[in-house]
Amino acid sequence: MTGIRAGILGASGYIGGELLRVLLGHPRVAAVVPVSRRLAGRRVDGVHPNLRGTTELVFRSMDDVSPCDVLFLATPHTQTMDMVPGLRSVAPCLIDLSADFRLRDPVVYERYYGTVHTNPSLLADFVPGLPELYREQLEEADLISVPGCMATAAILALYPLSADGLLDGAVWVDGRIGSSGAGSAATSTNLHAERSGAMRVFAPAGHRHEAEVRQATGLEITMSATGMPEVRGAQVVCRGRLSTPLREPELRRIHREHYADEPFVRIVAQRRGLYRLPEPKVMHGSNFCDVGFALGDDRDVVLVAALDNLVKGAAGNAVQCLNIRMGWPERLGLAFPGLHP
Amino acid sequence: MTGIRAGILGASGYIGGELLRVLLGHPRVAAVVPVSRRLAGRRVDGVHPNLRGTTELVFRSMDDVSPCDVLFLATPHTQTMDMVPGLRSVAPCLIDLSADFRLRDPVVYERYYGTVHTNPSLLADFVPGLPELYREQLEEADLISVPGCMATAAILALYPLSADGLLDGAVWVDGRIGSSGAGSAATSTNLHAERSGAMRVFAPAGHRHEAEVRQATGLEITMSATGMPEVRGAQVVCRGRLSTPLREPELRRIHREHYADEPFVRIVAQRRGLYRLPEPKVMHGSNFCDVGFALGDDRDVVLVAALDNLVKGAAGNAVQCLNIRMGWPERLGLAFPGLHP
Amino acid sequence: MTGIRAGILGASGYIGGELLRVLLGHPRVAAVVPVSRRLAGRRVDGVHPNLRGTTELVFRSMDDVSPCDVLFLATPHTQTMDMVPGLRSVAPCLIDLSADFRLRDPVVYERYYGTVHTNPSLLADFVPGLPELYREQLEEADLISVPGCMATAAILALYPLSADGLLDGAVWVDGRIGSSGAGSAATSTNLHAERSGAMRVFAPAGHRHEAEVRQATGLEITMSATGMPEVRGAQVVCRGRLSTPLREPELRRIHREHYADEPFVRIVAQRRGLYRLPEPKVMHGSNFCDVGFALGDDRDVVLVAALDNLVKGAAGNAVQCLNIRMGWPERLGLAFPGLHP
Amino acid sequence: MTGIRAGILGASGYIGGELLRVLLGHPRVAAVVPVSRRLAGRRVDGVHPNLRGTTELVFRSMDDVSPCDVLFLATPHTQTMDMVPGLRSVAPCLIDLSADFRLRDPVVYERYYGTVHTNPSLLADFVPGLPELYREQLEEADLISVPGCMATAAILALYPLSADGLLDGAVWVDGRIGSSGAGSAATSTNLHAERSGAMRVFAPAGHRHEAEVRQATGLEITMSATGMPEVRGAQVVCRGRLSTPLREPELRRIHREHYADEPFVRIVAQRRGLYRLPEPKVMHGSNFCDVGFALGDDRDVVLVAALDNLVKGAAGNAVQCLNIRMGWPERLGLAFPGLHP
Repeated sequence: MTGIRAGILGASGYIGGELLRVLLGHPRVAAVVPVSRRLAGRRVDGVHPNLRGTTELVFRSMDDVSPCDVLFLATPHTQTMDMVPGLRSVAPCLIDLSADFRLRDPVVYERYYGTVHTNPSLLADFVPGLPELYREQLEEADLISVPGCMATAAILALYPLSADGLLDGAVWVDGRIGSSGAGSAATSTNLHAERSGAMRVFAPAGHRHEAEVRQATGLEITMSATGMPEVRGAQVVCRGRLSTPLREPELRRIHREHYADEPFVRIVAQRRGLYRLPEPKVMHGSNFCDVGFALGDDRDVVLVAALDNLVKGAAGNAVQCLNIRMGWPERLGLAFPGLHP
Repeated sequence: MTGIRAGILGASGYIGGELLRVLLGHPRVAAVVPVSRRLAGRRVDGVHPNLRGTTELVFRSMDDVSPCDVLFLATPHTQTMDMVPGLRSVAPCLIDLSADFRLRDPVVYERYYGTVHTNPSLLADFVPGLPELYREQLEEADLISVPGCMATAAILALYPLSADGLLDGAVWVDGRIGSSGAGSAATSTNLHAERSGAMRVFAPAGHRHEAEVRQATGLEITMSATGMPEVRGAQVVCRGRLSTPLREPELRRIHREHYADEPFVRIVAQRRGLYRLPEPKVMHGSNFCDVGFALGDDRDVVLVAALDNLVKGAAGNAVQCLNIRMGWPERLGLAFPGLHP
Repeated sequence: MTGIRAGILGASGYIGGELLRVLLGHPRVAAVVPVSRRLAGRRVDGVHPNLRGTTELVFRSMDDVSPCDVLFLATPHTQTMDMVPGLRSVAPCLIDLSADFRLRDPVVYERYYGTVHTNPSLLADFVPGLPELYREQLEEADLISVPGCMATAAILALYPLSADGLLDGAVWVDGRIGSSGAGSAATSTNLHAERSGAMRVFAPAGHRHEAEVRQATGLEITMSATGMPEVRGAQVVCRGRLSTPLREPELRRIHREHYADEPFVRIVAQRRGLYRLPEPKVMHGSNFCDVGFALGDDRDVVLVAALDNLVKGAAGNAVQCLNIRMGWPERLGLAFPGLHP
Repeated sequence: MTGIRAGILGASGYIGGELLRVLLGHPRVAAVVPVSRRLAGRRVDGVHPNLRGTTELVFRSMDDVSPCDVLFLATPHTQTMDMVPGLRSVAPCLIDLSADFRLRDPVVYERYYGTVHTNPSLLADFVPGLPELYREQLEEADLISVPGCMATAAILALYPLSADGLLDGAVWVDGRIGSSGAGSAATSTNLHAERSGAMRVFAPAGHRHEAEVRQATGLEITMSATGMPEVRGAQVVCRGRLSTPLREPELRRIHREHYADEPFVRIVAQRRGLYRLPEPKVMHGSNFCDVGFALGDDRDVVLVAALDNLVKGAAGNAVQCLNIRMGWPERLGLAFPGLHP
């Protein structure tokens, strides 16, 4: 088979595992090179048991990575920024899934991540890995920075109205996230006995992703976040105020038109049924982001979005960016629709 | 044993079951009379299996209810308002857990419940069953209307600041509720396969409880609600704006002072640990309402409250009202602290 | 696109939804015809929200089904047996997912299903839809009966040892099943509040699937079953006794050899890691059946298998049978590997 | 208040937390002394958030423990056996919840726990903390060893038939246990993302508790165990063979008679309803052990038991032993009946 060679740094984590799953099933990827310092030499299906029977790959150490056509960085926040310069010789295209190159302003980065950015000159070189807003730039991008999972949901929820200047004043984004969002390291925070059944308001205000949403939409954003007792899934409920009164059919039309050509955004705002607004439960494994809306009294508007935090919120979105960058059909390797029930 | 005789209408439902559990363990209740039209003649532990070994009671039909000292109405919304006049001869004190006498204004009732109130003249006679706001009135009340579960949480979250006039403008209340809140009737909405793992935004705006919160606090309230994949528990996250800048120690002091003498409100706003803000997970079975707060940028403030929707959000709160009405110690029968993990 | 036309009776149920998902993504299926008496005229993505954006299909009524190349019957037990004769003119190949043609002996059927079989003469015409045991017969079969989900798991767990005559005496099969196994009808049994967190031993002995396992393996089988608080997934833990002492490497070799050429059976019996034995959690949406084993004292042996009850336990297995019947590659349309975590 | 002084070693763990909850509500316990090496000086409600508002206690270090009337050892397996001799001067009565003094035979201990017993001479001095079998000995006991959670369930499930010699041959005990059974230490095994939704067969055969069940019943026992995706709850399903044919009413009578005077054993074997056999879901926080039975073909019998692994499986059972030892009413402090739903 002819195809590209794709490397994954941090391939033993949850995002790394999803990258492996998607890339191993991608028709234009000939070879996947999984890198894990900790597990070099061990089989990837040891930590990603869903891949049993589909691959015999073993993790490699960093020293052992030969040149690739693309390199995905599923490496930790605050550590990735130092790695990027040295990786440019490994692959002509880097797709970073950490937070390190998401914010253009190093001062904002420092405020939200509590550490000085060590490579601020590179920030402007990264294109945000959000096809719905930056598709044209992605076609040429060599450095791509995939946004955070709840940020992606919130940006896609708010974009149709914000782009048309239809939102007025501050927006409250309430984010909900499953436990896989905290990664695969064992900490007491994520112990099953503590997290199961919990609704943990871990960020009552000022969640880090608000900076990304503000940057992408230009809106005044306040963001809270709650850890929900699920493994996968992110949902945002955003409350804003319309700058001009709109009725439901107009809202529907605006949303439909904005996302008419998007392969992975669905407008979900039904009048009946159990799934009237976006619901992460039926999106596990899929690359969709569902976006819905509802009107309140006066000019209040509520925008809801949902996605799988590891797919459209990370690995799937990254592969969608790769497809765009390579000029391939955008849905390649990303056809799985999710499960119900 | 000397003690009162307490009747429960709607004793086969989830709130009815909690009333049974609490009243059977209450040292001043000598007899409990469980009424269920549907299950008259059947043992109560058939539908409430946790009560096996603690009671041999059977459900009675309504015809079979002899006079009681107090009657709890765990009967459906919109049906209870017609029953009240006829029940006044059965017991000198009625404690209603339906929504029918929560709103003082029949016009507001009609708007939120979609039906005309058939006993509007009685509305003014009911005292809200919320000890933290109406304790003195409850001491003399013969008609008590227990507020909704999320309304109770939101009112207790907002009350310290609203009573002191410290909130400015509109407040968004985001409610989260477990599946027991929808009752024990089998509908596709609450099928395990559909609800498990879901975060269902069933009320993106205008949830019914907003009318209660508005009435109790005088604030401008917009309320959304999401069904969470838990059985028990309600949580509200409220975002408002301070009318004057306050710092964290002042907020803490205000909350502590407001609830200093309350046996069932705990201030939960820790700087470390896994349970820094109110969390329903550790409150199952308890009559506590936990209230916490956090400051955002500028004058943004976030108020969080959590409770067990069937206890402090219904049956436990009702028994707390009974204790007050009878002049008993307020904690009687309500000592269970909840479980961890 | 050239391809076959596939009809689905009972397309609104959970198995029907999985058939839709798999067939809509199948490269050799040109048209899918979903039939639902109850929902004729309504969009399929109304009840199967994961299919939003992937299909615009609407349910049809039975009268409206034009001839198909294959017809899947996802219709209720005890009702399907009367429908089969009339359906043979609709499609040359029928694949039944009900229990009605699984047992060859109508007396056994009556004992386990509590009703007389009304088409016993057809029983011998059905080939069991279990490729691992009946692949050659399936290549020519026009009538296929897909086994029960836990039966499939148990048969595949026991087959390597039973086929070689290595099991002695009775085997206890302990089955565990998620709530989707009980279908999409709303009953109090499957109410979220009642089922969430439960381990319900609904069949302490004599579960219906034991007749299928007995028929396929010739072993003396006793089967218990517990409803687990998950939506998807079936697992069996089988305890038997070896007729001759074997050691772990021999057991491993026997299992590997038996399933060496099977595309959808994986041997899972690891010495380390979190997923040492078959675990349905990481198999959602996949067509795998994982089989593992462990030795106890003396000649005790424990065999474990897991699968997704709606996929390898129903819809996926049915499509695997279709692939065999049509002479297509067996993995077509069934490549999804499941998710972790 | 007059009452005893009770110390708890290992008070920061899950069993320690339950001991705190129960003892703080116990009418004859005047003082509780919580000891934790790791958290000395910190408030107990920091790690046991359900106790907020009910206690201001702080953990002490071991050096700081003044003499108590009773000392509960919720300390790790294999470490507790060395501590016991030194603790005898601290309290006249020691109640050990570790596994170290459960097995009378040090050879068996070594086989199951992989380490030599360092205090074998003490083994015979401990009375098993299982009131249903050893009540008389407990009345005088100064050293009590509380059995394992699944062992308690299995012994109580099997005891009525085994005591009457009605079981023949080997019994398979299939145990299911929630994640709290693995303790509060953060390990990848118990990470929420890995454990949620799992049915992990961590002991396909030879689970440690089988030695306890064998010792208490004299039966030939093989025990498997599966980690279930719940936090609390243990259930055992035991399959055996009757030595003589019995019918259901006889089985019922035997069980009822055996446990007629037991305050914490309920016979649960209903013909209808959702909770026909023992179900841990409705037992959280309660000290009950529910025992049920069902007949299979021939002389097969299935015995089922359920309990809360931290209460009747640990802390509650320990306090029941204390009540017996002190000559107090056995239900003191243990009245909570569990919750439904």
